[in-house]
Amino acid sequence: MLEENKFSTLKDILKEMNTVDIAQAISESEPDKQVKIFRLLPKNSSAEVFSYLDSDTQETVINSITNVEIHNLVEDMFIDDAVDFLEEVPANVVTRVLAQTSRETREIINKFLRYPEDSAGSIMTVEMAAFHESLTVDEAINELRRTAQDKESIETCYCIDSQRKLVGLLPLRKLIVAKSGTVLSDIMLSDDRIISVVTHDDQETVAEIVRKYDLLSVPVVDYENRLVGIITIDDIVDVIQEENTEDFEKMALLLPSEDDYLKTGVLKLTRNRIVWLLILMISATFTGQIIEGFEDKLAVISGLTACIPMLMDTSGNSGNQVSTLIIRGLALGTVKPSDYFKVLWKEIRVAVICGIILAAANFVRMLTIRAVTGGETSTPVIFVVCLSMVFTVIIAKSIGCSLPILAKLLHLDPALMAGPMITTIVDAVSLLIYFGTATLFINHGLLPLK
Amino acid sequence: MLEENKFSTLKDILKEMNTVDIAQAISESEPDKQVKIFRLLPKNSSAEVFSYLDSDTQETVINSITNVEIHNLVEDMFIDDAVDFLEEVPANVVTRVLAQTSRETREIINKFLRYPEDSAGSIMTVEMAAFHESLTVDEAINELRRTAQDKESIETCYCIDSQRKLVGLLPLRKLIVAKSGTVLSDIMLSDDRIISVVTHDDQETVAEIVRKYDLLSVPVVDYENRLVGIITIDDIVDVIQEENTEDFEKMALLLPSEDDYLKTGVLKLTRNRIVWLLILMISATFTGQIIEGFEDKLAVISGLTACIPMLMDTSGNSGNQVSTLIIRGLALGTVKPSDYFKVLWKEIRVAVICGIILAAANFVRMLTIRAVTGGETSTPVIFVVCLSMVFTVIIAKSIGCSLPILAKLLHLDPALMAGPMITTIVDAVSLLIYFGTATLFINHGLLPLK
Repeated sequence: MLEENKFSTLKDILKEMNTVDIAQAISESEPDKQVKIFRLLPKNSSAEVFSYLDSDTQETVINSITNVEIHNLVEDMFIDDAVDFLEEVPANVVTRVLAQTSRETREIINKFLRYPEDSAGSIMTVEMAAFHESLTVDEAINELRRTAQDKESIETCYCIDSQRKLVGLLPLRKLIVAKSGTVLSDIMLSDDRIISVVTHDDQETVAEIVRKYDLLSVPVVDYENRLVGIITIDDIVDVIQEENTEDFEKMALLLPSEDDYLKTGVLKLTRNRIVWLLILMISATFTGQIIEGFEDKLAVISGLTACIPMLMDTSGNSGNQVSTLIIRGLALGTVKPSDYFKVLWKEIRVAVICGIILAAANFVRMLTIRAVTGGETSTPVIFVVCLSMVFTVIIAKSIGCSLPILAKLLHLDPALMAGPMITTIVDAVSLLIYFGTATLFINHGLLPLK
Repeated sequence: MLEENKFSTLKDILKEMNTVDIAQAISESEPDKQVKIFRLLPKNSSAEVFSYLDSDTQETVINSITNVEIHNLVEDMFIDDAVDFLEEVPANVVTRVLAQTSRETREIINKFLRYPEDSAGSIMTVEMAAFHESLTVDEAINELRRTAQDKESIETCYCIDSQRKLVGLLPLRKLIVAKSGTVLSDIMLSDDRIISVVTHDDQETVAEIVRKYDLLSVPVVDYENRLVGIITIDDIVDVIQEENTEDFEKMALLLPSEDDYLKTGVLKLTRNRIVWLLILMISATFTGQIIEGFEDKLAVISGLTACIPMLMDTSGNSGNQVSTLIIRGLALGTVKPSDYFKVLWKEIRVAVICGIILAAANFVRMLTIRAVTGGETSTPVIFVVCLSMVFTVIIAKSIGCSLPILAKLLHLDPALMAGPMITTIVDAVSLLIYFGTATLFINHGLLPLK
């Protein structure tokens, strides 16, 4: 439609569209059209659409509009969206944008940009409904009717005293059903029922609190308990997804990265991966040395070598199953370090049953293969493999549940610690058990040599 | 305090506490005290506290209170909380509870219990603010003041026509700033700006929509577009965490389970784990056969066997890194199947760089080990290992990015498909490359035999 210059039709369509969909459409169109579409937006929705654009498109738009347009845009945006946008674009764009904003807005933005990354302060917004506790219900409602349009969430209002200290919460439903003359301090929720976070709290802590108490927004206070902002749950949802992605990445031996996969360059992707690959390759020296020390015996006993990968994979998988459950449980708070002995006892029992079933299945499997392929694997070798299987599964499951809890106790990140460590330790231990069992059989003359 | 019979002090303390904290305190106290504390709660918060109790404690409480108390409790609860509770307790408790509820509530609950598990209908609630589109702003606000106390969320109100069809959304802030006489249909957001879900939509779809559009609640309609309920974002947060846990479990070769780890019995834990362990153990027959076929040569060439675990681990890790990124990208919508060739080309370049770095590091590592331990690994063997390393990493990364996308195209779950398959395929392929390279060297007389 742009090409056909049907501007007014397009304008009408845009009026009926959801802002998120408009933002997506703009991001997907060609750079020279992006600004044209953006300028057709109704005045009251352009700031919202802008905050949903990806940062490349935001830059393109900013670089093509006038200073007056920039001024209006930034003043119309919620502070948290403006801060998000400024954190992503190059410094020269930031300078130009800040030059066009009012002194007041600029001061707030600068303050926000100074909060540590991933802190409550960096993700909060200042557009909340806050009233002095001495107001009456009518005064509060009138004030709200006057200002509600600019608030990010009004489902809960906040009551403050003369020093701006947070003294109470007031769900909107409670406010609008209250009798006209009532003073807010008589109906607000106070004391222990106020759930709040401090500006320097980590966003992960904030997410836990919001999730635990089922909040739609949480007030942010400074160290003197003065109300400085709120964090709304839609931003918390993004935090939760970020934290989950980080755990996935750590457990898959990647350095965590906040960039989208498709937008990350080859060199950065390589850097995020090579670190753990190198560390684990070098630590594989242990398993290599264990095998080398046993190489002479492997060479004269048929079938022993062929089972190494199967044993190592099975024990690695067993260990990873438990560690994932425990890491996830620790992250969600359903497992606590104090549960350790309960967990260990449970895992040992699970491991014994799993180990026996796997060993039995393996016994049948190896007999079948020998019968079908006419291989030379002797029955005692099969016994060695099955016996080792039971023990390696038990050890793998014990290590798998112990390492994440140990990491948590040492204030290390379970996801980071446990994933990489478990493979290496379990690999080495299962080889030692395997060769130990084989040696025991050899010493008793039970394993026939070639 | 219970033991000292200080009931009134305790009652005062409970009044000041947050309902979530009270629920936690009750869940952690002894069974005989749970009901005593519960009965001390102020009438207006007992239903809320009850909905935060775990299902065991809910059962204990229900079994110890009178029929009248059950009636009041269930009528005071939000429908979605009541349904959650009834889905978890035994059938006899459900029968007793439903017998005590009013006919109207019972009918709604029964309808909810019939929605498919994990559908929008099963997690929605009916306590929303819905107005006929022909009401004026004053009428709507009065209606809201009369009923707001019972609504789960009033941040957005919903406009319906005479057939209860959803015709518009009205953010509360827009309602309270509107002029008195205005008719709702003139200020509501309509047409494409209405985002809604259908009762039978999967909860995962709902979560995606809520996340994409940053909604605090989403209306649920039936197939005739009649408004039947809303889903609030606090329930969506739980859905998101559940889906993430499910992906973690699938990628760690576990059958997904919704139960808390500590509450799951040994046999159920075993069942969730043994399936994939057995499948993968049996599929390790491939790697076993590959090694067995090469056993004679392994026996006469020092150092080849010792490097098998290192090569398999490195390629397995390389493959898992990519597949995790792609599975996560597909889940969050940042990677689409149509990006496949872009992804593959990126991965091949990353793999070439990673492979060369790893091979170089390995070359130094193996030379160092030989120098330190005086091992017998010959330089040509080291070359075979390094060369295989480059190729296995390239193949592993290609498989790692292809399998999840293939799974998605086949409408299979990438997390379920990719995790288990990648280890098995990559293991076999890397052994074939390794032995293939070694055979090439042997055929050209480049590998010295013992």
